Amino acid sequence: MTRNMQVILQRRPQGIPVADDFAVAETALAPLQPGELRIRNRFFSMEPAIRGWLDDKPNYLPPIEIGAAIRAPSLGVVVESRHPGFAPGDYARGLNYWETYSTLSDSTILLEKVEVAPDVPLSYYVGALGGSGLTAYVGLHDIGRMQHGDTVVISAAVGAVGGVAGQVAKRRGCRVVGLVGSAEKARTATEQLGFDVAINYRDTSDLAAAVRTACPNGVDIYFDNVGGATLDAMLTTMNVHGRIVACGMIAGYNQQDTPPPVYNMWEMVSRQLEMKGFLLFAYPDAIPPARAQLESWIREGSFKVLEYKREGLENAGLLFSELMSGKTIGKTVLELA
Amino acid sequence: MTRNMQVILQRRPQGIPVADDFAVAETALAPLQPGELRIRNRFFSMEPAIRGWLDDKPNYLPPIEIGAAIRAPSLGVVVESRHPGFAPGDYARGLNYWETYSTLSDSTILLEKVEVAPDVPLSYYVGALGGSGLTAYVGLHDIGRMQHGDTVVISAAVGAVGGVAGQVAKRRGCRVVGLVGSAEKARTATEQLGFDVAINYRDTSDLAAAVRTACPNGVDIYFDNVGGATLDAMLTTMNVHGRIVACGMIAGYNQQDTPPPVYNMWEMVSRQLEMKGFLLFAYPDAIPPARAQLESWIREGSFKVLEYKREGLENAGLLFSELMSGKTIGKTVLELA
Repeated sequence: MTRNMQVILQRRPQGIPVADDFAVAETALAPLQPGELRIRNRFFSMEPAIRGWLDDKPNYLPPIEIGAAIRAPSLGVVVESRHPGFAPGDYARGLNYWETYSTLSDSTILLEKVEVAPDVPLSYYVGALGGSGLTAYVGLHDIGRMQHGDTVVISAAVGAVGGVAGQVAKRRGCRVVGLVGSAEKARTATEQLGFDVAINYRDTSDLAAAVRTACPNGVDIYFDNVGGATLDAMLTTMNVHGRIVACGMIAGYNQQDTPPPVYNMWEMVSRQLEMKGFLLFAYPDAIPPARAQLESWIREGSFKVLEYKREGLENAGLLFSELMSGKTIGKTVLELA
Repeated sequence: MTRNMQVILQRRPQGIPVADDFAVAETALAPLQPGELRIRNRFFSMEPAIRGWLDDKPNYLPPIEIGAAIRAPSLGVVVESRHPGFAPGDYARGLNYWETYSTLSDSTILLEKVEVAPDVPLSYYVGALGGSGLTAYVGLHDIGRMQHGDTVVISAAVGAVGGVAGQVAKRRGCRVVGLVGSAEKARTATEQLGFDVAINYRDTSDLAAAVRTACPNGVDIYFDNVGGATLDAMLTTMNVHGRIVACGMIAGYNQQDTPPPVYNMWEMVSRQLEMKGFLLFAYPDAIPPARAQLESWIREGSFKVLEYKREGLENAGLLFSELMSGKTIGKTVLELA
């Protein structure tokens, strides 16, 4: 158990990451210190946010150094513990690394003991019941202050966050419109995830006009996973006092030195809009009720969870590249046997 | 008293407005209807927001038609009233027009009876004690949630709103940094208005770096009157959970078809920022306490009110052009004898 395989950053990606930006390397595991626990990783959450840490640029977390392991949320089973809250066989989640074994402590971001339900697939706990789903839920309720009857537009609508957000908003009695980048994704949004309308932005030369048509009462909440030109168009469709939940801006993640421009910022004043950026870990009190509600919906069987999976650390780079190319639908998950 | 002179929109301005975009015309005054009152205007508030109404483009108020009178806040003395709340000799304020006499009713935006203090110059009631000062006060407190010890950066710092905002923030125990466009304005900010530091953005090739130097503890509140490149730079200087009070975006007002781009929107997520656009008339409950506090400070004599004035409707266009060229310091006011 002293042998640990890690996926490290081999070189900084140019634009969309490719598999060769990453490499697998072996490291030794140090004996556990008091307060630490060790997990064998089962599932990794592949997230666009990771792209931001691959550039040598300040971000909300430090850049990942060349040669260092890739930081990412994971779920694993405890194999050894010197932490009073965890025993072997427990499941633990946290912001760890792409590696076989992770060593966690109270200083691990989002460290959490996960009570897994026997009738819920384990991978859901890094997706719909992990950061992605919780981000969707907390973003709509705590940042967007969603009310019954609101019109809610969600970009990257069949992504890990968007797909949950759409279903949550529908359950709260909202009109829900999804923005996506392909006809297949549009079908997935309406036929599988219950969006009222899905707009393929590649199909229209005037996204704002398409959104206005789909939202006859205007837009109360825009849940933004995309930024850039999509945000720019949405600014001109918002109702007075509308809220923009700034969850992600994937349009710029592959080109951090030349982020896409936004021109319509005047609409913020003219329409008296509120835009709020958020990161889930700043809202710890909102997480337990969000998770309880999502888990209850999932166990009832009415809530659809879509996943895109690959297995093995050697496929981590490829899978991340697929995610950042917009090729995946649903939660992108890496599994370790 | 049936003769009324008005300043009308002669043609739509291209870029910065010039005096010839406007013309003076005579109109007749209709007899008052029940519920109406008539004022003889004394002072007009010249405001950048008016620029937005001069283009044939949707805004938060309808565009001003060619040949129609220019909409603007004014203060006047009541000369005739069929409104139960006003008697001749009272002072009334509202969103009126550039004209000798204005006819007001309960449907006039921001209609208000103004109790003028004998020791306060009347013009202050369209500036520091009018929309500009109230916007500064309400923006800092109700939108920015200003706290003692915050670092507050204010753009257009010697303008009508910025000059009040800076003094209010100083009185609340904040570190206050002003952004201005000339050395003279920088001196005015620090020597007359009490800003801790003033940065002339024309003097630096890296505004963000200059702001970071002036704000060793980062920026908690950015009170934005400017938008565009200034907002873009400020986004990279904000503290986590910082607030951006989106009061105005004058950088784009003279070029509404090609507004200036903002690139650094990712900082909204990364720094978990909140940006909120606001218009004073949406916060009626916040206005009376704001006015009481500002009037008290002004009557104490410690609060500095700067004004840039011209007289006569025939000079309205010229004065507005000076305002929109950045030539004025303090509140820009048109006076009628």
